[in-house]
Amino acid sequence: MPRFFRKSEKKAGSSPGLQIDVQAASGTEPEICVLIYSKDSLETYHLPNIDAAPSLIQKNKTAWIQVTGIQNHFAFSRMGQLFNIHTLTLEDMVNPAHPPKFEDFDTYYYVTLKQLAFDPGNHEISETQVSIAVMENLVIFVQDKPSPCLKAVEKRLQSGRGNIRTAGPGYLAYALIDAVVDHSLDVIGQIASAVESVERDMLEDLNPGHLEQIHRLKREVIFFNKQLRPVRGAILSLIKSESPFVSDTVIRFYADILDHVNHILDAVTSLQELLSSMLDFYMSSQGNRMNEVMATLTIISTIFIPLSFLAGLYGMNFKFMPELEWQWGYFVLLGGMAVIGSAMVVFFKKKGWF
Amino acid sequence: MPRFFRKSEKKAGSSPGLQIDVQAASGTEPEICVLIYSKDSLETYHLPNIDAAPSLIQKNKTAWIQVTGIQNHFAFSRMGQLFNIHTLTLEDMVNPAHPPKFEDFDTYYYVTLKQLAFDPGNHEISETQVSIAVMENLVIFVQDKPSPCLKAVEKRLQSGRGNIRTAGPGYLAYALIDAVVDHSLDVIGQIASAVESVERDMLEDLNPGHLEQIHRLKREVIFFNKQLRPVRGAILSLIKSESPFVSDTVIRFYADILDHVNHILDAVTSLQELLSSMLDFYMSSQGNRMNEVMATLTIISTIFIPLSFLAGLYGMNFKFMPELEWQWGYFVLLGGMAVIGSAMVVFFKKKGWF
Amino acid sequence: MPRFFRKSEKKAGSSPGLQIDVQAASGTEPEICVLIYSKDSLETYHLPNIDAAPSLIQKNKTAWIQVTGIQNHFAFSRMGQLFNIHTLTLEDMVNPAHPPKFEDFDTYYYVTLKQLAFDPGNHEISETQVSIAVMENLVIFVQDKPSPCLKAVEKRLQSGRGNIRTAGPGYLAYALIDAVVDHSLDVIGQIASAVESVERDMLEDLNPGHLEQIHRLKREVIFFNKQLRPVRGAILSLIKSESPFVSDTVIRFYADILDHVNHILDAVTSLQELLSSMLDFYMSSQGNRMNEVMATLTIISTIFIPLSFLAGLYGMNFKFMPELEWQWGYFVLLGGMAVIGSAMVVFFKKKGWF
Amino acid sequence: MPRFFRKSEKKAGSSPGLQIDVQAASGTEPEICVLIYSKDSLETYHLPNIDAAPSLIQKNKTAWIQVTGIQNHFAFSRMGQLFNIHTLTLEDMVNPAHPPKFEDFDTYYYVTLKQLAFDPGNHEISETQVSIAVMENLVIFVQDKPSPCLKAVEKRLQSGRGNIRTAGPGYLAYALIDAVVDHSLDVIGQIASAVESVERDMLEDLNPGHLEQIHRLKREVIFFNKQLRPVRGAILSLIKSESPFVSDTVIRFYADILDHVNHILDAVTSLQELLSSMLDFYMSSQGNRMNEVMATLTIISTIFIPLSFLAGLYGMNFKFMPELEWQWGYFVLLGGMAVIGSAMVVFFKKKGWF
Amino acid sequence: MPRFFRKSEKKAGSSPGLQIDVQAASGTEPEICVLIYSKDSLETYHLPNIDAAPSLIQKNKTAWIQVTGIQNHFAFSRMGQLFNIHTLTLEDMVNPAHPPKFEDFDTYYYVTLKQLAFDPGNHEISETQVSIAVMENLVIFVQDKPSPCLKAVEKRLQSGRGNIRTAGPGYLAYALIDAVVDHSLDVIGQIASAVESVERDMLEDLNPGHLEQIHRLKREVIFFNKQLRPVRGAILSLIKSESPFVSDTVIRFYADILDHVNHILDAVTSLQELLSSMLDFYMSSQGNRMNEVMATLTIISTIFIPLSFLAGLYGMNFKFMPELEWQWGYFVLLGGMAVIGSAMVVFFKKKGWF
Ligand SMILES: [Mg+2]
Ligand SMILES: [Mg+2]
Ligand SMILES: [Mg+2]
Ligand SMILES: [Mg+2]
Ligand SMILES: [Mg+2]
Ligand SMILES: [Mg+2]
Ligand SMILES: [Mg+2]
Ligand SMILES: [Mg+2]
Ligand SMILES: [Mg+2]
Ligand SMILES: [Mg+2]
Ligand SMILES: [Mg+2]
Ligand SMILES: [Mg+2]
Ligand SMILES: [Mg+2]
Ligand SMILES: [Mg+2]
Ligand SMILES: [Mg+2]
Ligand SMILES: [Mg+2]
Ligand SMILES: [Mg+2]
Ligand SMILES: [Mg+2]
Ligand SMILES: [Mg+2]
Ligand SMILES: [Mg+2]
Ligand SMILES: [Mg+2]
Ligand SMILES: [Mg+2]
Ligand SMILES: [Mg+2]
Ligand SMILES: [Mg+2]
Ligand SMILES: [Mg+2]
Ligand SMILES: [Mg+2]
Ligand SMILES: [Mg+2]
Ligand SMILES: [Mg+2]
Ligand SMILES: [Mg+2]
Ligand SMILES: [Mg+2]
Ligand SMILES: [Mg+2]
Repeated sequence: MPRFFRKSEKKAGSSPGLQIDVQAASGTEPEICVLIYSKDSLETYHLPNIDAAPSLIQKNKTAWIQVTGIQNHFAFSRMGQLFNIHTLTLEDMVNPAHPPKFEDFDTYYYVTLKQLAFDPGNHEISETQVSIAVMENLVIFVQDKPSPCLKAVEKRLQSGRGNIRTAGPGYLAYALIDAVVDHSLDVIGQIASAVESVERDMLEDLNPGHLEQIHRLKREVIFFNKQLRPVRGAILSLIKSESPFVSDTVIRFYADILDHVNHILDAVTSLQELLSSMLDFYMSSQGNRMNEVMATLTIISTIFIPLSFLAGLYGMNFKFMPELEWQWGYFVLLGGMAVIGSAMVVFFKKKGWF
Repeated sequence: MPRFFRKSEKKAGSSPGLQIDVQAASGTEPEICVLIYSKDSLETYHLPNIDAAPSLIQKNKTAWIQVTGIQNHFAFSRMGQLFNIHTLTLEDMVNPAHPPKFEDFDTYYYVTLKQLAFDPGNHEISETQVSIAVMENLVIFVQDKPSPCLKAVEKRLQSGRGNIRTAGPGYLAYALIDAVVDHSLDVIGQIASAVESVERDMLEDLNPGHLEQIHRLKREVIFFNKQLRPVRGAILSLIKSESPFVSDTVIRFYADILDHVNHILDAVTSLQELLSSMLDFYMSSQGNRMNEVMATLTIISTIFIPLSFLAGLYGMNFKFMPELEWQWGYFVLLGGMAVIGSAMVVFFKKKGWF
Repeated sequence: MPRFFRKSEKKAGSSPGLQIDVQAASGTEPEICVLIYSKDSLETYHLPNIDAAPSLIQKNKTAWIQVTGIQNHFAFSRMGQLFNIHTLTLEDMVNPAHPPKFEDFDTYYYVTLKQLAFDPGNHEISETQVSIAVMENLVIFVQDKPSPCLKAVEKRLQSGRGNIRTAGPGYLAYALIDAVVDHSLDVIGQIASAVESVERDMLEDLNPGHLEQIHRLKREVIFFNKQLRPVRGAILSLIKSESPFVSDTVIRFYADILDHVNHILDAVTSLQELLSSMLDFYMSSQGNRMNEVMATLTIISTIFIPLSFLAGLYGMNFKFMPELEWQWGYFVLLGGMAVIGSAMVVFFKKKGWF
Repeated sequence: MPRFFRKSEKKAGSSPGLQIDVQAASGTEPEICVLIYSKDSLETYHLPNIDAAPSLIQKNKTAWIQVTGIQNHFAFSRMGQLFNIHTLTLEDMVNPAHPPKFEDFDTYYYVTLKQLAFDPGNHEISETQVSIAVMENLVIFVQDKPSPCLKAVEKRLQSGRGNIRTAGPGYLAYALIDAVVDHSLDVIGQIASAVESVERDMLEDLNPGHLEQIHRLKREVIFFNKQLRPVRGAILSLIKSESPFVSDTVIRFYADILDHVNHILDAVTSLQELLSSMLDFYMSSQGNRMNEVMATLTIISTIFIPLSFLAGLYGMNFKFMPELEWQWGYFVLLGGMAVIGSAMVVFFKKKGWF
Repeated sequence: MPRFFRKSEKKAGSSPGLQIDVQAASGTEPEICVLIYSKDSLETYHLPNIDAAPSLIQKNKTAWIQVTGIQNHFAFSRMGQLFNIHTLTLEDMVNPAHPPKFEDFDTYYYVTLKQLAFDPGNHEISETQVSIAVMENLVIFVQDKPSPCLKAVEKRLQSGRGNIRTAGPGYLAYALIDAVVDHSLDVIGQIASAVESVERDMLEDLNPGHLEQIHRLKREVIFFNKQLRPVRGAILSLIKSESPFVSDTVIRFYADILDHVNHILDAVTSLQELLSSMLDFYMSSQGNRMNEVMATLTIISTIFIPLSFLAGLYGMNFKFMPELEWQWGYFVLLGGMAVIGSAMVVFFKKKGWF
């Protein structure tokens, strides 16, 4: 499947919304974990399926439903019925290829994002889709496979420090989105390090391997940019949405995420410009090298080709070649060759060729 | 006819709107098929011409008129009179070159789009124009030749599943537009696969054939972009139009199409950047290759040209050349040549030429 | 005079508005033709000068004053007084270099445009300025020399078909602007044909002449873009102007022109991108060619230069060269040369140089 | 001082507004000239310093204070006190490096612009700063050195033609700004001529000198663009400012300046694109030339190097070389060489190398 | 740490706001200096820690708290409690990597900026973060290390000239921001000088060292742009913020900063375009040089290679070579060689190769 355009597996022209065909219904059941918390309490429930979740939710506590695994569409269909989630949202949740977005519904808002990681082995960025639906006192979090952002936020919830336990579902969603964006900060930091390290290397001692390094870094920056640029619009929409599930207090924190995203996008632009300049430097250095090589060849050839011709001339076996008979013919010729050769050297020196 | 700017066949300066000249009036009659449906019923009528259509329409059912073939302008003129369609809309319907757009009239809204397909044989994208006019309880769909989007939606209508039978003409139009855009998703997916496959090939083993592949892919991405970029504005206008024929429920679904279109356009931008980087890589690799070739030539030439000159010198036939008479002259020269040759090799090694 | 920036002939720092200096006042008198028409009548008057025009105008008919020739500024000054036209508008009318624009005055609105034509001989676009002032029941049309848009619209007026006779001065202006834009459609269509034909040629059999063709086409696309891009803003301003001389019915038609202009500008962008890709293809193909040429030279040279050196060595005339005396010396050397030559061939094959 | 970023001479961190340090206070006094005019009168006063100016101003006449020379900050400080000018405006007036801008104050508005000139000798654009402050019945015009725009407007004022004497200070300011922009029209016209003349030259007979010409023209277009692009925003702000010193009648005239500026900026964009295409043409033509040169070298070398090797072979002095003894050996070899050479020629012809 | 993307040291997924972990709490205590001033007085207090600061603040005087050093987060946490500063602001204050921004809180507004300096030794720009929080009658200024902008403003405060003592905290903040931006003016001025000096050098006598100079300057311009571009939005937001701590009088001064920032950003764009053109000139000049070198080689080779072949031919030792026996064979050959050589020279002259 292409990295630069993944497609959901739905056939063109099929019905909108979550499709429960035979294959999708028989997929692996998702793992369901529910956390119910308030200022002073935190309970964790591992459920066999989603149906038991609604009964766990309590009026004065916040619930966090963690869903891991998106193969079984039947389970998502059940979840949709239980929590009144639009079929288009459910479809987006089970689509690992959806670009980042924010969407505001009457009873919840929905955010989907890419969790990114940079594999230092093959120098490629990998992505995992995460989805967050925020309701009155409930956050539903969907991930294809276990992701670090969930673990980090769960740990903070367990420690009970800060206001994460008391600030409601909007703040929990903020914490999750912030963790996802923080990972992007790490990724762009690693890419920036790699770019600047190649640049230092090139300025010190250019070699042909730098070309592939530049291309691979450009490719990953393009990929990163594609995954992150829509996040800006999503966060901006969230801030301007006036959704009842985002309080004024929490909006300050979303603005902080926006700062991060802007910082990242500025860095992406700068890195693209720097990589462009590095490629231009590479290509021009190639040209310098070529000029040096060709000048060497031309100087040597231009000096010796005429001299060799003269030597060849007097190596001919004509019966009658008067110069050959002269007593000092050889030495006169050697002198002439020395003059011609020196003249050439002076000529090239004057032209600045070496 | 150029692919990158097709023109309708109307002469410059002619009257606006549908023109019924002799040639256009004598064109092949369009095939007319009318579907009348409600929650529980679906009737299909194949009509010899458009005149019988109005009498089939019923108050509480939705009608879908499918028109296949745009040569006979007289038929479209009749349709315009029967359904009160503006002459400029009729003109757009019979113009296979019109770019995508949305236009809001008092009694209907009009959308025209390009159905795209990627021919894996010649690696070219082909386009078919489709037009949709949405009225109170009627959708008129016009296509130049049978198109897959119509078939897919008709099948869903026949199956009766989902809410396609009950959600009215705005939803039927949505289903058609969605099918057209879904086909574009397929096309860009195939192009992305092709681009990334060329990129992998190039990094493994670059060959001159990659250049033409890159150019052809760039050309098709430009073509795709030209056909799809206006769709974004058209869907946005539709969503913001406040047309009475687009209900709030259906707007959610149009927003889902917009997600697809944004995803595609982001991918187009990324693919253009990736293809640019691939071309840069190709050109710089050419330069690397050239440097290697020239260095080889220069090293061999620079070593042997002076040695050959010396050999030529002692191949001359001067009567008096004292070195030739020396007992060890030949071996001294061989030694000298070995020294010169080795010095050259050391010199080039030091310069890092091999 | 430069094509890419023509300037009116006014001196810097001179007064604004129409200047009636001696030279301009003594220019050739413009041809004045007045058409007075209503649903059932059309009268044509050729006038010796503009002064007789006002008396021809009738309450319930539309008047169309055609002015051909812009040299005599005195005539325009008279026209300004007779019809209450601002001196800045008069100045624009007689300036053949003015870029397209729309301007709304209290008693009229003013549009100026470029009529374009593509000369297939020298492959250059030529431009003619046309100006249109629309008043209560009057259209003043100014052209430097007879232009095809006027002829086309006049013919429609004479035929009396359509609603051109009844829809008033706003519709007549629309018909003229539409005819001008339709000619641009023809021009960009011819350019697109030329670009795609060069592209097909290049892919089949690249030759150095393609370079100049690409450059000339790029130049004409830049020129076309410069002439047409401002038209979009002009038409948009006209549509949004709420001028009393543009009725709601006519605005639909102006929107149709806007469709054409958007189509053209999208095509211009695509053609610029295609020409860029073609140039990149040209340059890289040059590089491929160069690599092939250089590899040929290097292979031949690298094989034969060392062999020639050996031959030269044994062509030397030293008294004492033991190898020369050996019975099989010659054949041993031939064998050695065959080995060296074959080794080189194998080496280059392995490197993939041929 | 760099042309592409001139800086005022103030030290970083110093107080805002006009600074009256010792050096600045002891600068050459500016020349002060005051024109008092109405429909029927025009009086000119040359003053020794600014202090006498206020007493010259009359209720029903317009005053124009011309200040030439910006070295003496003390004089500007006095002017500020006399006419109630903000210290930041005074600072801008004495800063010859300020980019074009419009600023609206309660008691006046302020415009600063660059008067440009193209030196056909060294092909460089030079700039002079001019500043205009417009008050109730007063225009203060500041220039570093005598500038042509002032002279042109003064002449019109003296002639008394047009409405310059009666239209108040807003119109006088318009006339000055118009004169400055008109000079820019001249400059861009000269640059366009130069660009198109180089282009014609290149297409006729390319030579290496064209490269430097292209670079110098690109540099001047970048410089011109930097000086003129901010003017657009300044004029737009002026038009939209609703300043009491800009009447509706005069706004029409400012809109005319905006037309000029838009025309210039469109031309700048087109010229940049044309220069880009010219450079691409130059570089590709270099490549064509190189290919031709290299093909020549390769053909000659590839034909003769093997033949020379054969000649060298039979020039060896081995005792036993049977071919040398053959009666027809020489002619057989000549024949073989002819065959090899012809085969090579045929091979290169087939490859299309010449 | 990469220059093009610095990251704060917080771990992904950690709590928002200032973190007081063991390491951060044990950092070096910041230096605290408090200035209390009014029109007639200025008192300076060096405090051991922040706790004594609130008691120094007086109703009718302005207080300026200078905090130097950001390692000790505990101290910032105390400051936050004392002055009611949001934890996200405190986090930004201790993050030396934060991009420039403005943020408006109910009880203060916050600005963070980069103080830039150009090191003429290694030609690199260095940055220092400064943060400013403006409250009712208090400015808190935070810097990582002593910065020149603080010193310059403190000196002005001590001198008591201008209105810095009386214009309140908004004006003090303006003075600090202005000093930071003024330093950027110096930096871009130095870069512009360097760019133009390289350009002059290149036009006079191009050498390979210019390539690295161009690349390094491009890199620094990209870096500068990244640091300065966000300042524009920050200042604009400040001006439009309607914060009670920015009076109308002071807004004029912020507009003056905006002028500087716009001037800088225009210069950055122009310098980027100029550097691009310089690189193009460099690359094309390389091509010119290469063409000259190759033409030299080709001319010499093409003249002498055939002649050398002829010489080699008559140096062969065949028994029967009739030409060798001819009396004038040698001279006939010399004549033939002269003819061939001259023909070649004429041929190359005609082709314009030298
Ligand atoms: Mg940016
Ligand atoms: Mg970018
Ligand atoms: Mg970017
Ligand atoms: Mg960029
Ligand atoms: Mg670039
Ligand atoms: Mg580039
Ligand atoms: Mg995008
Ligand atoms: Mg694009
Ligand atoms: Mg794009
Ligand atoms: Mg792009
Ligand atoms: Mg790109
Ligand atoms: Mg590129
Ligand atoms: Mg477009
Ligand atoms: Mg364009
Ligand atoms: Mg364009
Ligand atoms: Mg483009
Ligand atoms: Mg390109
Ligand atoms: Mg290009
Ligand atoms: Mg433009
Ligand atoms: Mg431009
Ligand atoms: Mg431009
Ligand atoms: Mg441009
Ligand atoms: Mg360009
Ligand atoms: Mg380029
Ligand atoms: Mg700019
Ligand atoms: Mg820039
Ligand atoms: Mg810029
Ligand atoms: Mg730029
Ligand atoms: Mg540029
Ligand atoms: Mg460039
Ligand atoms: Mg480029």
